[in-house]
Amino acid sequence: MESLFLLIVEIVGTIAFAISGIRLAAAKKFDWFGAYTVGLATAIGGGTFRDILLNAPIFWMHNGWYLGVTGLSLAAVIVFKKSLVRLHNTIFIFDTIGLALFVVIGIQKTLTYGYPMWAAIMMGTITGALGGVIRDILINEVPLIFRKDVYATACIMGGIIFWVISELGCSSIVQQLVCSATVIVIRILAARYNWSIPILRGYADSKNDI
Amino acid sequence: MESLFLLIVEIVGTIAFAISGIRLAAAKKFDWFGAYTVGLATAIGGGTFRDILLNAPIFWMHNGWYLGVTGLSLAAVIVFKKSLVRLHNTIFIFDTIGLALFVVIGIQKTLTYGYPMWAAIMMGTITGALGGVIRDILINEVPLIFRKDVYATACIMGGIIFWVISELGCSSIVQQLVCSATVIVIRILAARYNWSIPILRGYADSKNDI
Amino acid sequence: MESLFLLIVEIVGTIAFAISGIRLAAAKKFDWFGAYTVGLATAIGGGTFRDILLNAPIFWMHNGWYLGVTGLSLAAVIVFKKSLVRLHNTIFIFDTIGLALFVVIGIQKTLTYGYPMWAAIMMGTITGALGGVIRDILINEVPLIFRKDVYATACIMGGIIFWVISELGCSSIVQQLVCSATVIVIRILAARYNWSIPILRGYADSKNDI
Repeated sequence: MESLFLLIVEIVGTIAFAISGIRLAAAKKFDWFGAYTVGLATAIGGGTFRDILLNAPIFWMHNGWYLGVTGLSLAAVIVFKKSLVRLHNTIFIFDTIGLALFVVIGIQKTLTYGYPMWAAIMMGTITGALGGVIRDILINEVPLIFRKDVYATACIMGGIIFWVISELGCSSIVQQLVCSATVIVIRILAARYNWSIPILRGYADSKNDI
Repeated sequence: MESLFLLIVEIVGTIAFAISGIRLAAAKKFDWFGAYTVGLATAIGGGTFRDILLNAPIFWMHNGWYLGVTGLSLAAVIVFKKSLVRLHNTIFIFDTIGLALFVVIGIQKTLTYGYPMWAAIMMGTITGALGGVIRDILINEVPLIFRKDVYATACIMGGIIFWVISELGCSSIVQQLVCSATVIVIRILAARYNWSIPILRGYADSKNDI
Repeated sequence: MESLFLLIVEIVGTIAFAISGIRLAAAKKFDWFGAYTVGLATAIGGGTFRDILLNAPIFWMHNGWYLGVTGLSLAAVIVFKKSLVRLHNTIFIFDTIGLALFVVIGIQKTLTYGYPMWAAIMMGTITGALGGVIRDILINEVPLIFRKDVYATACIMGGIIFWVISELGCSSIVQQLVCSATVIVIRILAARYNWSIPILRGYADSKNDI
C-alpha cells in the first residue's frame, strides 16, 4: 500500500521532470529525439549521478518504466501542445512533490550505503536538482538553479530537517514526511513570494582570469 | 581473422569520430591540446559513459591505442588541412561504419553484463551517439543530434533490428551484420534524402519556465 | 609531518581552485548557491571523474573538509570582494601549487590501482585540469584551457617527467618533487612569457559538418 503510493508519486514526479526538459528542448526547436533525450536526462540524471558516486547499480537500468513514462510525457507535450501552459500550476505542484520524493530517496539510499549524513544531504540535493542542471547544459543555457529560484536550497533545507528529525529519534516515516513537507513548503513559498538567494556582485570584469 | 577485421573497423571508426571532434574544435579556434581532447572525447566518450553505467572497467584504460590513434588523427588534420574537406564523403562513410560497429559493441557488452534488451539498445545508442553530444558540449554548441540528422535514430533502429533478429533465433554473426547494415543504410539514406525527425513547435516563449 | 604538509598544500590548492570557480560564477551573476556549486565542482570535479574512471571510492565522500573549505572560499569572496583582485598573483601561485599536487596525487593513485604509466599521466592531467573544464561548462563558456593557457600541457609535462624519473630508479619522494616542480615552473614560465600552443586554422566554415 505504502509502496504503491510511493510508486505513484515517483511516476508523477518523473513525468513532471521529463515535461520540464521536453518543454525547454521544444523552445530550442529540438526534434522529438532531442526532446525525449533531454526529458529523460532531466528525469533520471540526478539519480544516475548519485548512483555513480555511490558505486550503486544505476536505479533505472533494470527497470524500464522510466523510459516509458518519459515517452508518455513526450506524447503528452506533442498532443496537448499549448494547452499544457494552462496546466502550469498543476505541473509545478507535481514537479515539487517529485522533487521532495527524490530528495528523500537520495538521502535514504546514501545512508544505506554507509555514508555520513552530510554526504546524504548532498546526494539528496543531487538527486533532486542535478537533472535540471544536465537539462540546461544539454540545451546550452546557463543552469537556471544557479541564478534564480530557491530550488536546490529547498532540497538542502529538507535534508537538514531530515537530519534534525533523525537526531531527535523520530521514526523513519516521520523523517520522510517532514523532510518532504519542508522541501515542498519552501519551494512553494519561494515561488509565491519571489524569494531568492543573494547574488555575488562586483566581478563583471574578472571573466578572463583563471 | 575476424577479430583483426573488427579491430581495423574499430580503428577506422575511432579515427573518423576523432576527426569530427578535431574539426569542430578547429572551427572554434581551439589549440592543439583542445582539439586533441575534443577529438578523444568524441571518439571514446560514448563507450566510457556506457562502461560507467555498466560498472565495467573503462574499455580504453588498459589499451593505449585509442589515444595514439587520436594523436594520428590530429596530425592528419594539421598536415592535410583543407584537403580533408575533399575527403568529406570518405570520412562520412568511415564515420557511419564506425557508428554501426560501436552500436553493436555497446549492445553486446550490455547483454553480457546481464541487462535486458531495451537497456542494451539504449547502451548501443549511447556508445554510438553520446561522444558527439560530449563534443558539442565541450565546444559550447547545442548538440547537433538533437536538432538535425537521423543519427541516434539510426542507432536505435539498428538496436531494434538486433532484437528482432535475436528473437528469430539467428546466430550472433547474423545479428551483428544485420544490425550494422541497418544503422549504415538508415544513416546514408537519411543523409541522401534529408530525412529528419519532427520538431516540437509552439514553445518559443516557455524558456523561462522550469 | 610530511602528511601534515601535504594536507596544508591540498587545502590551499582546493581553496585556490574553488575561488577560481566562484569568481567566474560571480562574473555570470550566479547566486551564492550557484557560486558555491561551481567552486566545489572546480575544486573536486577532476578528482571525482578520476575516481569514477578508476572505479575507486570518491575521495571526498567520507571526508567533509572539501565542502567546508569551499564554503570558506565563498565567504572570503563575499567578504573581501574586489580586494581579492589585488591578491591575483598570490592566488595564481596557490592555484599552481595545488595543480602540481593534484597531478601527483592523480598519477600515484592511478598507479596504485594497477594501470599503466600513460593512463596515470592522463589521470594526473584529469585530476588537475578537468575541474576547470567542468567549471566552464557550468557557466556556459568554451573551456578556457582549450583555447589559451599552457595549463593541461604543464600537467602532461609533469607526468612525463614523473615517468622519466621513475625509469631512472629514483625514490618516490624525488619523483613527486620533480614532477611538481615541472608543473609549477612550466605554468609560471608560460604565464610570464605568454607561451601558448598552436591553434588549428582553416576550419571556420566546417561548423555544420559532423
